Amino acid sequence: MHALTGDAHAAGEGGWWSNLIGEGKAIDTNKYFVICSNILGGCKGSTGPSSINPKTGKPYGIDFPIITIGDIVNAQRNLIDHLGIDKLLAVVGGSMGGMQVLQWMVAYPKRIRSAIPIATTMKHTPQQIAFNEVGRQAIMADPDWHSGNYYDKGIPAKGLAIARMIGHITYMSDVSMAEKFGRKFRSDRAPFKFGADFEVEGYLHNRGDNFVRRFDANSYLYITKAIDYFNILNGHSLGDIFRGLRAKVLVLAFKSDWLYPTYQSQEIVKACKLSGVDASYCEVNSTYGHDAFLLEIEQESHLISNFLRSVTTGNGNKGA
Amino acid sequence: MHALTGDAHAAGEGGWWSNLIGEGKAIDTNKYFVICSNILGGCKGSTGPSSINPKTGKPYGIDFPIITIGDIVNAQRNLIDHLGIDKLLAVVGGSMGGMQVLQWMVAYPKRIRSAIPIATTMKHTPQQIAFNEVGRQAIMADPDWHSGNYYDKGIPAKGLAIARMIGHITYMSDVSMAEKFGRKFRSDRAPFKFGADFEVEGYLHNRGDNFVRRFDANSYLYITKAIDYFNILNGHSLGDIFRGLRAKVLVLAFKSDWLYPTYQSQEIVKACKLSGVDASYCEVNSTYGHDAFLLEIEQESHLISNFLRSVTTGNGNKGA
Repeated sequence: MHALTGDAHAAGEGGWWSNLIGEGKAIDTNKYFVICSNILGGCKGSTGPSSINPKTGKPYGIDFPIITIGDIVNAQRNLIDHLGIDKLLAVVGGSMGGMQVLQWMVAYPKRIRSAIPIATTMKHTPQQIAFNEVGRQAIMADPDWHSGNYYDKGIPAKGLAIARMIGHITYMSDVSMAEKFGRKFRSDRAPFKFGADFEVEGYLHNRGDNFVRRFDANSYLYITKAIDYFNILNGHSLGDIFRGLRAKVLVLAFKSDWLYPTYQSQEIVKACKLSGVDASYCEVNSTYGHDAFLLEIEQESHLISNFLRSVTTGNGNKGA
Repeated sequence: MHALTGDAHAAGEGGWWSNLIGEGKAIDTNKYFVICSNILGGCKGSTGPSSINPKTGKPYGIDFPIITIGDIVNAQRNLIDHLGIDKLLAVVGGSMGGMQVLQWMVAYPKRIRSAIPIATTMKHTPQQIAFNEVGRQAIMADPDWHSGNYYDKGIPAKGLAIARMIGHITYMSDVSMAEKFGRKFRSDRAPFKFGADFEVEGYLHNRGDNFVRRFDANSYLYITKAIDYFNILNGHSLGDIFRGLRAKVLVLAFKSDWLYPTYQSQEIVKACKLSGVDASYCEVNSTYGHDAFLLEIEQESHLISNFLRSVTTGNGNKGA
C-alpha cells in the first residue's frame, strides 16, 4: 500500500519501492504476485476529486465525498474479490500505507496471512494533524484554488508547493538534513531579496515545484483528512483491537523518524501482544527520518524477505 | 532580549516575561534596572520595513536594508551608550533573544558582567532554516504581499497566518500538544468541508489570526533571515569564539525543546569551557517544548535569581 503521495507504480523503472520489489528482491516477483493500486481519492488512476463526476460532466472538486482509510481498504478488497483472490499472503506498506495495513488487520483479518505495517501509527497525534492542517491551509489560501474548482483555470501551485515543503521537512531528520545540506549556500544565489540563499531552501523549492506537476491539490486535501481522521482504536482498547487476528505481523520503525516516532510503532506491537497476535518488532537504526522506509533498503530487504519466508513455509502462524 | 515576535513590553501587565521581571521577582526591579528595546527590523517601536523611508515618504517595504543579529545588538549598544551605561550586569534572552546574548558575548565582551542565553543556538541547522523558509514562502505566495508594498492596500494576512501556524507547531512539543488538545473535536465543528475539525486546528487558526493583527509580514521576513544567517562561529573554532570573555555565563535549555534541541545549548557550554569561560549549564525537565522558556517560570526564576545574586555578590567571576 502506498503512502500519501505515492501511486500504483511501486516496482520497475522509477517505482517508489523498486529496490524492494522485483525479481530476486525482498518482495520477489519470481515467487509472489504483487498488487499495488492507487488509493481511492488519489489522482493516479483511482477515482478522486479530479475525476469526472458523471452527474455534471465536470471534475468533482470538493463535491467529492469524504473518504476514510476504511473506504480506501474497501476498494482494495473489492479489487482482490474481482481478481478472485481469497487470501493475501501479506499486506505491506509504510506511513499512510501502514495505516491501510492496520485497517486490513481489523476489517478483513481472514483475508490476510500476514501484515507488515512500517513507520506508521494507529492514530494521528495533534502534532501530526497540525502539520497536515498547515499544508491544507496553504492550499486553500492560494487564490488559484478557487474553492476546489480550479480544473479549467490552472492549479493552486504556490499553496500546494508550500504544503509539500512542510511535508519534506517532516520526512527528513535534523541529522539527515545536516548531512545533506549543512549551511551551504547555493552556488547561483541571487543578491539578497528573500530568494533561496541556502542549499536546503533551494532543495525545498525544487521539491515543491516538482510535486505540483504530478499531484492534485484536492487529492492532497482529501487524503490528509483521511489520515487525520484515521483512528484504528476508535473506542476499542489496545488489548481488544486485534483480537482474533491469526495473521503474523512484522512491525518496522526507524529511530530518527520524528513524524511517526518509534513509540507509535511500539504501541502497535503492544496491541498485538495484548491480543495474542504473533508479532515481531524491529527498530531500524537509521538517520534518514521518516524517509527511511523508502531508503533503508538493505535492512528492510533482509527483514521483509525473512519474514515472508517464515510465513510461506509456515514457520510461524499456520492458521492460514 | 526578546524573541522573533516579541517586543519591548517584557514586564508589567501583558508583558511577555512579566512573571520573571518585576518587584520581588527573579529579575527584581527593586534591585536591577531592566532595559528591553524592540529589535531593529521589528514593528513595535524600532525602525523596520514598515517604518517611513525619509527619502520617499513611504514605508521602506523590502527596500529596507538587510539586517543581522550583529546590527540588532549594535543598536542596543548605541542605546546603552546613550543612557550612559558602561557595563550591563547581565544580558538575558531566549530563542532569538539568546542569539543576541551570544552576539553581546562576542562583540562587546567588556560591556557585560554576565550572560544568560536560553533555549538558543550558535547557528541554525538546515532544519531550522527550512521551517523559517516555508513561513517566508507562505507570506510571499500571498498575492496581498505585493512584493512587500502592501502598506496602503491591506496585509498578506493568509500567508502570515500560515507562517505563524508553522511556528506554533515548532514552539510546542508532541507531548504538550497531546496534553492540551488530544484528538478532541471542536464543539462548533461545521459539516465536513476542510474547516477546523480538531481542537488543535482551531487553536492554530486562532493563533494565526491573532498574529496578523499585531505583526508586520515584512518584519517577519527580515528577522527570520537575520536568524538564519546568524552564525556566531563564522569560521572561528569552538575553543576560540569566547576566548577572553570574563563575563559569567548561565546556559539554559529545555528537554522537550525540539526547535532548539539541548545539544545546541550544550555546544555553547562546550565553547565556553574550551575558552576558559566561567559557564554553568542547566537542562530543565519540561514538556512544553521551545515555549518552555516563556512558561517554566518557577524553575527559571530560581536559576536566574541565584545566578544574578552570584554575579552581584562577586561569588564567581570578579573580573568585572
